[in-house]
Formats: sequence, structure tokens, C-alpha cells
Amino acid sequence: MSQDQEFSPSEMRWDPVYRTWSIIAPERGKRPGSFLRKEDFPQKKLSDEESPFSYLNDHATPPPILKISDPEGKYPWKIKVIPNKYPVLRVEGIIERSAEGLYDIISGVGAHEVVIEHPRSEPTSYDLSVNEILEILKVYRERILDLKKDIRFRYIMVFKNEGNLAGATIAHLHSQIVALPERPLQIQTLLNSMREHFDRKERCLYCDILSEERKIGKRIVFEDENFVILCPFASQYPFELLILPIEHNHAFEFQSDRLLYALALTLHNALARLGKSLDRPHFNLAIITAPPAIPKLTRPHYWSSLKEDFHWHLRILPRIVFQAGFEWGSGIYLNPVPPEEAAAHLKEINPY
Amino acid sequence: MSQDQEFSPSEMRWDPVYRTWSIIAPERGKRPGSFLRKEDFPQKKLSDEESPFSYLNDHATPPPILKISDPEGKYPWKIKVIPNKYPVLRVEGIIERSAEGLYDIISGVGAHEVVIEHPRSEPTSYDLSVNEILEILKVYRERILDLKKDIRFRYIMVFKNEGNLAGATIAHLHSQIVALPERPLQIQTLLNSMREHFDRKERCLYCDILSEERKIGKRIVFEDENFVILCPFASQYPFELLILPIEHNHAFEFQSDRLLYALALTLHNALARLGKSLDRPHFNLAIITAPPAIPKLTRPHYWSSLKEDFHWHLRILPRIVFQAGFEWGSGIYLNPVPPEEAAAHLKEINPY
Repeated sequence: MSQDQEFSPSEMRWDPVYRTWSIIAPERGKRPGSFLRKEDFPQKKLSDEESPFSYLNDHATPPPILKISDPEGKYPWKIKVIPNKYPVLRVEGIIERSAEGLYDIISGVGAHEVVIEHPRSEPTSYDLSVNEILEILKVYRERILDLKKDIRFRYIMVFKNEGNLAGATIAHLHSQIVALPERPLQIQTLLNSMREHFDRKERCLYCDILSEERKIGKRIVFEDENFVILCPFASQYPFELLILPIEHNHAFEFQSDRLLYALALTLHNALARLGKSLDRPHFNLAIITAPPAIPKLTRPHYWSSLKEDFHWHLRILPRIVFQAGFEWGSGIYLNPVPPEEAAAHLKEINPY
Repeated sequence: MSQDQEFSPSEMRWDPVYRTWSIIAPERGKRPGSFLRKEDFPQKKLSDEESPFSYLNDHATPPPILKISDPEGKYPWKIKVIPNKYPVLRVEGIIERSAEGLYDIISGVGAHEVVIEHPRSEPTSYDLSVNEILEILKVYRERILDLKKDIRFRYIMVFKNEGNLAGATIAHLHSQIVALPERPLQIQTLLNSMREHFDRKERCLYCDILSEERKIGKRIVFEDENFVILCPFASQYPFELLILPIEHNHAFEFQSDRLLYALALTLHNALARLGKSLDRPHFNLAIITAPPAIPKLTRPHYWSSLKEDFHWHLRILPRIVFQAGFEWGSGIYLNPVPPEEAAAHLKEINPY
């Protein structure tokens, strides 16, 4: 690192998995107003009476797909999964692939579910206990396994928008599950990167990254025997975190209760560090798991042995900078905080 | 369109040039709070005394690279180009390509300039006259032509962030020019799409799109003999606009004064329609021009006859929705407004 120099030179860094360039530009972080402040973008807080997702307003949402009861019996439920009232895609119908002149269309068939992670409107992700996180992870697992039974779906994604700067429109703790009729380009890119690496080397690309990062150490925030929290080499956002399972496995949804508990511990640890160092920043979180296999005959170039080729992981992106015209026009990310500095900083935080 | 149905079914649409999927999901637009309101994200207005970019504060910015004098003599200059004080990339040095274990690095050599488009802090892009826009376009042209002389640069991008929702940190009318040591993936994707199309058909992909869109008509907002304003089939954002020159040409910077005047008229027209229909939304704008040719020997797969393969264009993205975890995790864009509806709406607006 170059904190001692007058100018910190910037670098373009290539992410071999996501196949994107990031420009790590420390000078940019010295601009006045270079980081977003939550106070400048106030989000209306909701009382339990107002929140459509609260336990007081069960009538305001569609009947639940899944309910986890409250062990203490204080609330009618602890976690609730409902169909999204304003879905991106609808579950009914067959998937039609059609052409309109030069263009291609797929009918909007899929699933869009909301996981309401707490009966009350007050808590945020930063307030959840390890056990509460564990219960939520188990719900994700159950819903993914159920949605995978529907062979129409080519990908199932789990993500969370925490706070309005991360795109949340309702200020009540929730995440979303979307099942898509097509593999997202980004997932196919990951799969291609990992498959090409494996074809050449008979090793997993993320396993190689893990081994290199553990050897270098400077981008690692925390590790135990199951997971590593690190700031990726070509981080797209400042303080971006990657949670990688140390044992190679392609799919989040095949993990045992024991491993989910270890993940809950790790996620709690990661959020505590972020929360303490950046004043509970808004963030996006995504669980990246292998897509369902597509029958080889349908799309030979899509097929691969997912078990060897994919390594599931979890990403957290604090939203403390805006993506602007540069990122959108180039597909290159601009990040003012070198991941080595972010990691050094987060490593020092006591998460307990 | 399906305004009359109770539910408007969504569609996944493929953009054959940008090679991305967008989900056009009209139901999502019916959510409460589904569109951002500028009032909820106030940006500090700057007086001429406060703005570092105003004519009163020439001492606050580096010496200009280019100055256009004010024909009326009211201000010391009309437009001023300066090096960015907090640059993404620096102009000094040679471009080094290196490896760090598994990873790739390019030293951060490039150029980063700011085009201050008005001496005063008050006006926004919506206040510019056709002649003022023309002068700005000429400045872009001059700077691109100058930067292209430097053979270290593989792409020169011109973009504008208008308003804080579009990522502008200083509330004074300006745009930016960045010269990069590497072709952005997105530009390479465009080039690949257009080249593959041309190789097979000996026709330009955008020329084909133009001809189809003009035949169908429903996504065209305005056209004259030089330009078409349209809402792209697979629009990534609500009310996204594409300005396409009707005559095939690969590079913005090779356009004549006459054509730049026609572009200024078109851009003024497009902004007036957006401004009137969406209350002057914040937006990003980018001029997408062909990258400089790379010598064939260096990267054979990068080389192509740019003249046939590229069709320059201009994109405008109003920022009235947040990109959230879904877009980031999938690379699929979620757009609640069908481009046909956006075009029908914008077509009705009187821009004068």
C-alpha cells in the first residue's frame, strides 16, 4: 500500500471469476463528499402498525408459502415467506421463447418470494442474533430446494436489499428469492470462468483463490475452520466482502445444519465488523449458488458437471458510493478504497 | 401492450447489441414508492461563490486544458476543460501490465478530464440552449480527437452524471472524459455483437435495428433526417433513451459541424421531453463511439475494421429507480416501464 506517498497511484484489477475490471483509485476517496451518508438519504421508518410486513398486518400480504413459528410464542410467527405482491415474474404459465424481428423474448414466468425476516419493523440485519440468522439461512435452503423441483427454472437467486441506498422500498427486514426462466449472464460467466480453470488444471478457481489469499493474508478479514471472510482483490465496491466456504462445494442448498450454523456465525461476524466500522451501512447481499443443471441435449455448451465447476459463496456490498455514468458506460467499477486497506481496517474491529 | 388487463405480464427481453437481459415488469411500477423522487434525496445547491467550478473560483481548479470564450463577454469563459483533481487514472507514466499470482493488474495510467459546461452554478442540462449544447459537443469532439493521438489509450469515454441520484458529487453542470488503458468489456461486447452481425450479413446491426424500429414505430419518440430518438426494445431503465444517427458512421468524433448541430437539436429535444414528463429527472448520459483501433499484431482477436463494425450512439438513462440486489446479483435489469409506453408518452410531449 502507498499511504505514505503524496499520490496513491491507481490500478486496474481483473477479477478472474466475475471477469470484470475494477479501478482501485485511492485518490478518489479523498474527494470531499466521496462517500454517501445515510443521513442525507433519509428513509421513512415504519411502526409495526404501518409496516405491511409486520405481524400486526398479516391481512395486508398474500397467504404465506412458509411460516416459522416463534419459539417464545410472543408473535404469531418468527419468519414468513410470502409471494411478492408486485412480482418481477409470475409463477403461472409455460415459458415461451419467441422472436420479435431481430429481438428475443422469454415470457415472464418465474417465482418471486419475499422472506420477512422478523415480525417487527424495528430490527435491521445488524440486530439479528446468530440463531436468528441461522433460522433465516434454513428458510433460504428450504425455499431453494423446493423451487429447484420446478424444472422450468434455470436459476434461483437469494438476495437482500438492506436500506434505501441499497434499493429497499419497504423499511422492514426482508430478503427476496427469485426463480428465473434463464440463467443470468453473470452466473453463466462465473460458471465459464470456473469450468475453464478446472478443465485446464483440475482444480477449482475459488479453491486456488482461497489458498493464495490465505498465503498472502492481507485481504483476509477473518477465518475459522469453515469460512473465510475476505475483501476481494478486484473489489467492485469499497469494503465489499466475500464469504467463501473453505471446503469445496457447489451449492449452498446442500449444506448441513452444522455448516449453516457456521455460516450464521460468520455472517454475524462480518455484519458486526461492517456495522461498527461504517455506522451500519446499507448493503446488498447475495448468496451465489450453482444453477440447476440443464439437460445436456438442450444446450450442450451450457452443460457441465456443476459439482466440480462451481464453488458457492456469499457477497456483501456496502452501498457507500453511488454507481454513476462511468460504471454504467464502461462496465468497469470504480472503487476508492483498496481492499487491502479495507481488510486491515475490518480485521481490527472487535465483532463481539 | 396490456394496459387493459388486470395484470400486465412481464417479459424478459434480450438486447442484441449490449447482450443483456432486461425484465420488463409493468406490475412493479404499480408498487407504492416504486419511483425515486428527487425531493427525497436533496442535493445541496451551490452559489457561484461556493461552487469550485464557477467562474468566480478559477483559482480552485487546475489550469485549464481548453477554454471556450464567452461570445457575449459576460464571463471569463463559457466552457472550460480541466484535469480532474481527484482522477480515476493519471496521465503520467507508462502502462505496465503485470500479474500478481492468479490476478492481473494494469497500472492506472489514463486521462480524466472535467468539462465545466457553464460558468455559473445555477443552470442544469435542462436549461441549455441548442447553441450551448452544440458548443459542448464540439468540445467533446476536440478532446476525443486530441486524446486519441496518445496511442497508450484503448478507449475514450464521455459521460455526464446529472444530479446526485445519477452520482454527481458537485452540483455544477459538468461532464467527464476518461481515457482508459484497456477497452472496457462493455465496448468490446458491443463491438463483438456488431462485428458478428456484419460478418454474417454484411449489414450493420444498429442499421438493421434502425430500419426495424422505423417500420414498427411504437418505440420511436422522434425522428428527423439525421437522428432517431427511441426507447430501446430491452430498455434497462424506465424512459431510457437511445439517440441513433441514421447515417452509418462508427465514430462521434469524426462528425461535421453540421451533424453536431443536428445532434444538439436532437439532444435538446430529448431532454425537453424528459424534463417535462418526469420533472427534470436526474440522469446519466454517455456518448458511445468506436474505440481506437489496436494494431492487429498485438491482439488479433481485438482487431476489426471499425468503420463497418461500429455505429456510434448516445444513451440517456433517467435515474428514477434504484438498481438493487437483483440487478447486481444477476446482471439482469429490472424495468417497470415498457419502452412502448415510455415512447408513447414522450412522443406526445411538446418539446418547445
